[in-house]
Amino acid sequence: MSGRADEAKTLEERLRLIEDRFEIYNLIASHPPSADTGARNYTASVWTEDGVFDRGAEFARPTGRAAIADGSSSPEHHRAIEQGIAHFAGLPYVRVTGDTAFAISYLQILVPDRVGPMFEVPNHGSSRGFHVHRVTANRWDFIRTEEGWKIQRRTLRPLDGTGPAREILSSALNP
Amino acid sequence: MSGRADEAKTLEERLRLIEDRFEIYNLIASHPPSADTGARNYTASVWTEDGVFDRGAEFARPTGRAAIADGSSSPEHHRAIEQGIAHFAGLPYVRVTGDTAFAISYLQILVPDRVGPMFEVPNHGSSRGFHVHRVTANRWDFIRTEEGWKIQRRTLRPLDGTGPAREILSSALNP
Amino acid sequence: MSGRADEAKTLEERLRLIEDRFEIYNLIASHPPSADTGARNYTASVWTEDGVFDRGAEFARPTGRAAIADGSSSPEHHRAIEQGIAHFAGLPYVRVTGDTAFAISYLQILVPDRVGPMFEVPNHGSSRGFHVHRVTANRWDFIRTEEGWKIQRRTLRPLDGTGPAREILSSALNP
Repeated sequence: MSGRADEAKTLEERLRLIEDRFEIYNLIASHPPSADTGARNYTASVWTEDGVFDRGAEFARPTGRAAIADGSSSPEHHRAIEQGIAHFAGLPYVRVTGDTAFAISYLQILVPDRVGPMFEVPNHGSSRGFHVHRVTANRWDFIRTEEGWKIQRRTLRPLDGTGPAREILSSALNP
Repeated sequence: MSGRADEAKTLEERLRLIEDRFEIYNLIASHPPSADTGARNYTASVWTEDGVFDRGAEFARPTGRAAIADGSSSPEHHRAIEQGIAHFAGLPYVRVTGDTAFAISYLQILVPDRVGPMFEVPNHGSSRGFHVHRVTANRWDFIRTEEGWKIQRRTLRPLDGTGPAREILSSALNP
Repeated sequence: MSGRADEAKTLEERLRLIEDRFEIYNLIASHPPSADTGARNYTASVWTEDGVFDRGAEFARPTGRAAIADGSSSPEHHRAIEQGIAHFAGLPYVRVTGDTAFAISYLQILVPDRVGPMFEVPNHGSSRGFHVHRVTANRWDFIRTEEGWKIQRRTLRPLDGTGPAREILSSALNP
């Protein structure tokens, strides 16, 4: 556990590790806002030049920050945004080791229901509600650069009872 | 990115920034428990005297900690609590700058289904399930006071494909 | 609030408190990966010898790390994993006090829908979607040991409009 390992570190090293960790929390927390607005420039700024975004065989696997930014701001992606897509990030497991770091996180993708009855909740308005379209297990690999921490690789697999998602999740248990 | 900017700060300033940030995480994490219990006194204690809670044109816009606390503990709100309303907060983007701070967060509002079939999940009991009533984009503006960090303004808009939610989310990308 | 209390602490004490808090965030963030993979050894490693996992009268109440680890890796639990169960953790409220700590967190349990129409979301594939089976309020009590922070007790109750969940949530408001 981190408690013991930290005892040999200097104050400066310990502070830096904490600041690194918060920077990575913010990188993960910025992903839903960038995905739900189709923010091309922002997306390009947080990936390494040779980054790889692997969503499994069902999807294209863009390589390089330009291709990844293109995918996250494509006309097809903007159609999802117009439908009200919401990416929703849970509490991630984060581990920083020197100039690299990784995180394991869960992500929900929700979309507003377009048909069906309206529900009203007292003091909380009326709505048809939202549909949870996907729940995915995500592994993020980060690297420290002169421009701050960047995403080098992100691998996600759907949580649907199959093995690949469980392999990703296991990395949080045996770091 | 914070890495570079921090190099000119003293140890004390860096520690304070980290403690501030954790205090703000706890303020955001306390919101669902206060909303789901209708905790009037707690709510009054975490807002500034002149705080503004803006949920959009569909809802009243209480101004001042007393009005905000009244709204979160009204009879109407308690009816939602009796129905089993759950506020569910994702990982927020948080940025502290001196004596002010802001956060961008996603929030789900869920309610138990009252009709429909019971589902059983092995080792996880029986339930009719929950309905995701709303997903909102939230901007929180905080200020440091002699009694700790307080909420000065909270603005939320539903994620439903319209522009106002996207404007809120964009603040996490260009701070 | 923590701001004032910290002023009497040494730099070392303040740093330690921050590191403790991050260790506890990672413990909570590791729970969904361990639950969704049925990780017996990991589960045993994060509980105290005499730990108590209390899910309410509807469920068995295992006592001791061996019994808790057995429950989380039982054949019945593995059937839930094969159905694609996902535990999804929100942002927790965390408070560290010396060698003990506690957290209040929300947890969703989702399962893939096995029947019903497929939905397609542009750029985000096809899926029958997920069903939110349960939303629970969780209280975690932690203790510092020579092997790092361990879970001493976890109590959860369903958010369904009844009182026990609200009692748990209130602990985040009056620590």
